[in-house]
Amino acid sequence: MATRLPVVLCLVLIGLSSSCWLIACASEPTANEEPLASWNDQPSRRSIVEFVERVTLEGGPDYVPVSDRIAVFDNDGTLWTEQPMYVQAFFAFDRVKELEPQHPEWRTTEPFASVLRGDLKSALSGGERSLVALVMATHAGMTTEEFEQTVIRWIAEARHPQTGKLFTEMVYQPMLEMMSYLRSKGFKTFIVSGGGIEFMRPWAERVYGVPPEQVIGSSVKTRFELLDGRPSLLRLPELNFLDDKSGKPIAIQLHIGRRPIIAFGNSDGDLEMLQWTTASDRPHLGVLVRHTDGNREYRYDRDSHVGRLDRALDLSGELGWVVIDMEQDWNRVYPER
Amino acid sequence: MATRLPVVLCLVLIGLSSSCWLIACASEPTANEEPLASWNDQPSRRSIVEFVERVTLEGGPDYVPVSDRIAVFDNDGTLWTEQPMYVQAFFAFDRVKELEPQHPEWRTTEPFASVLRGDLKSALSGGERSLVALVMATHAGMTTEEFEQTVIRWIAEARHPQTGKLFTEMVYQPMLEMMSYLRSKGFKTFIVSGGGIEFMRPWAERVYGVPPEQVIGSSVKTRFELLDGRPSLLRLPELNFLDDKSGKPIAIQLHIGRRPIIAFGNSDGDLEMLQWTTASDRPHLGVLVRHTDGNREYRYDRDSHVGRLDRALDLSGELGWVVIDMEQDWNRVYPER
Repeated sequence: MATRLPVVLCLVLIGLSSSCWLIACASEPTANEEPLASWNDQPSRRSIVEFVERVTLEGGPDYVPVSDRIAVFDNDGTLWTEQPMYVQAFFAFDRVKELEPQHPEWRTTEPFASVLRGDLKSALSGGERSLVALVMATHAGMTTEEFEQTVIRWIAEARHPQTGKLFTEMVYQPMLEMMSYLRSKGFKTFIVSGGGIEFMRPWAERVYGVPPEQVIGSSVKTRFELLDGRPSLLRLPELNFLDDKSGKPIAIQLHIGRRPIIAFGNSDGDLEMLQWTTASDRPHLGVLVRHTDGNREYRYDRDSHVGRLDRALDLSGELGWVVIDMEQDWNRVYPER
Repeated sequence: MATRLPVVLCLVLIGLSSSCWLIACASEPTANEEPLASWNDQPSRRSIVEFVERVTLEGGPDYVPVSDRIAVFDNDGTLWTEQPMYVQAFFAFDRVKELEPQHPEWRTTEPFASVLRGDLKSALSGGERSLVALVMATHAGMTTEEFEQTVIRWIAEARHPQTGKLFTEMVYQPMLEMMSYLRSKGFKTFIVSGGGIEFMRPWAERVYGVPPEQVIGSSVKTRFELLDGRPSLLRLPELNFLDDKSGKPIAIQLHIGRRPIIAFGNSDGDLEMLQWTTASDRPHLGVLVRHTDGNREYRYDRDSHVGRLDRALDLSGELGWVVIDMEQDWNRVYPER
């Protein structure tokens, strides 16, 4: 129920000489009258809300203290559109074109030659190996600060080839609302993505309300060195960590250090993250976003080259995961412009 | 100045129909009438407080928004006593004795044989290599959950060989107050230690008020696998990351993703972390804890085999780092029991 009256909250904290208090007020990035306004009243929404109410009911049998309310979200295909290709692949392609003058050899070397010809399908025909080669060649050889600026410039202007929207306008409104809703219930929201950690951080706080320290992703190695006497971190063309499949629970343990109680994913790349989250003895919730909406977004699952959802879907019934049907469950896909 | 009157804070938030707010109230682990009661009114305390007031003064020229108030702390020798040896080395030694029945070969293999003979000096004569060998042999071959339980059991009872105190009673009271003080000023406090990330996490929240996701340290590799059908993370006897020296800024970037504005350290292992923190164009503060108190704690710097402070001390003047003199600046070292 949306309340249209101004809400006044008066919080009185009495510190009797010795206690300390910390008050953090964060305005949430999505403004909406009702917390989950873009979600239809369907079983998947009801299951999620029922779970959240259960674990936040003080004194209830499934109560989870605030410190353990960790929710993890995949990014590509879970928080924003990943078709016809990962957004970061578009970034890598644009970088190849930008850097081409310094790399004449790319004109005759794959996958670069295909990118320069505009033949993106061929460029990616080598699968993960091609993508890693493109990323190493275009995301390294600069400091972390320079890379951050490159991403900020690109993401401010880059547009989706089919909708013409900014990529950051193609985040899912219902998922923005879900993250806000969970945060309002004391959850800490983390992104756990196969995408580059430093590719997401420069805009994740603005777009998702997730600060850099709560963004986990794939990374290249870096080297600390003094450049002109200035301490710098240089990005090296060497993979440090691939945060996909079984890498996701490993990264969750390394970065977060405790097991989430909620995990949202959309593909087989999220399978192990959901298994890890939902194998505990505590209350837990696994959710798959299923791309069923060929009109408003894309319709794909078992046969897609991007965001393939196959084994995780097979296991979802047995493991009690909620499967979101984008067409049925969401009354809006993208934020209003 | 301590205020002994009850403090009443009334916070009024007006959400005009659409904004969301999040309020987090955390009680701080150390109760004290004055925020920095164990700090004498000396230049080092004054410099730190002056800095904090400057960066939190809204509208001031050096104001830093809450989201960028990141403070990092080394652990061994900065937050707790590291003499006569790192606490984690005592843990590894106890593990060697515990696991010896399963490893008869250790009776004739160094550094294990020395540990079993109780000759800890010889055991560590191989330097970092010996320590890594001991850690790999005693911290791996189990799941992350089993290791956590092992640490919890050990830290609850293990005592310092010279004071007979629990190791967790040998944390520095002034530093507990400093972390609380910074948190009360909107800072997020992180531990960035050469010690094992999973060795610190099980007790860091209780002892320091730092949650697992804000603890950064050295790590072993882990492997995700189904053990008896149950998703598990198995700890492998292989170093994943050594969070020392230039590893510290690298780990800060990987885990936090933005540059701290305050760094506390005590040894040359913290040099690069302090350089990285204090090289930015923003307000920044580097602090070294100098072990000058041979009566209440230990007196050591340039010649110590543990926590050697040499180059960082040389650079502290030129780089404007605050050097804390434990004997002069702290009126109490450990918490009252």
